[in-house]
Amino acid sequence: MKDCIFCKIVAGEIPSAKVYEDEEMIVFKDIEPKANIHLLCVPKDHFALLTEMDEGRAALVARMLRTIAAKHAEWGLADGYRLVVNQGENAGQTVHHLHVHVLGGQTLPWD
Amino acid sequence: MKDCIFCKIVAGEIPSAKVYEDEEMIVFKDIEPKANIHLLCVPKDHFALLTEMDEGRAALVARMLRTIAAKHAEWGLADGYRLVVNQGENAGQTVHHLHVHVLGGQTLPWD
Repeated sequence: MKDCIFCKIVAGEIPSAKVYEDEEMIVFKDIEPKANIHLLCVPKDHFALLTEMDEGRAALVARMLRTIAAKHAEWGLADGYRLVVNQGENAGQTVHHLHVHVLGGQTLPWD
Repeated sequence: MKDCIFCKIVAGEIPSAKVYEDEEMIVFKDIEPKANIHLLCVPKDHFALLTEMDEGRAALVARMLRTIAAKHAEWGLADGYRLVVNQGENAGQTVHHLHVHVLGGQTLPWD
């Protein structure tokens, strides 16, 4: 998708600090980290919203979650992690390409 | 699961302010809301961690995400929402039964 920063990262047109990649997704470090460890898991398929998930995309998102779960210790997150998905304006979704934030490496505030 | 508060809510042994229920999941208001709207989407199947997802559970979690996406406007979240999944100690996971926080009804802080 033209002008999508995550599509450009997927295509290698913009560099990223990748920690994982397969046919369907990439995982790289957020350039504006909100925790000691802050990764973004991004599907290679461009879509912005969970409402755009058909069954195939839902299965893809499920595989993203399983991949994060399988790899989290390797990424330094053995003591726990938080997944965040921002959808739309109130959540401050700034890139309109679905992404799962993976936060950890410290105690994360909740209140 | 004995002594699991979410299993008791699923079983109706503890009351909850339910906004949705089907064969696989329930969605109810968090009793300690962290935003104007704060719902919890909970699978009826008891498991704590995404690492415990086999393919069947991954498909269930995908259906939870699709249900949230399909219903969010009905729940007052048309202007956007944030999904949060806390896993383990660093994330402050307090109930060891998987749950997806659904937050919105206001602009959500990120920084």
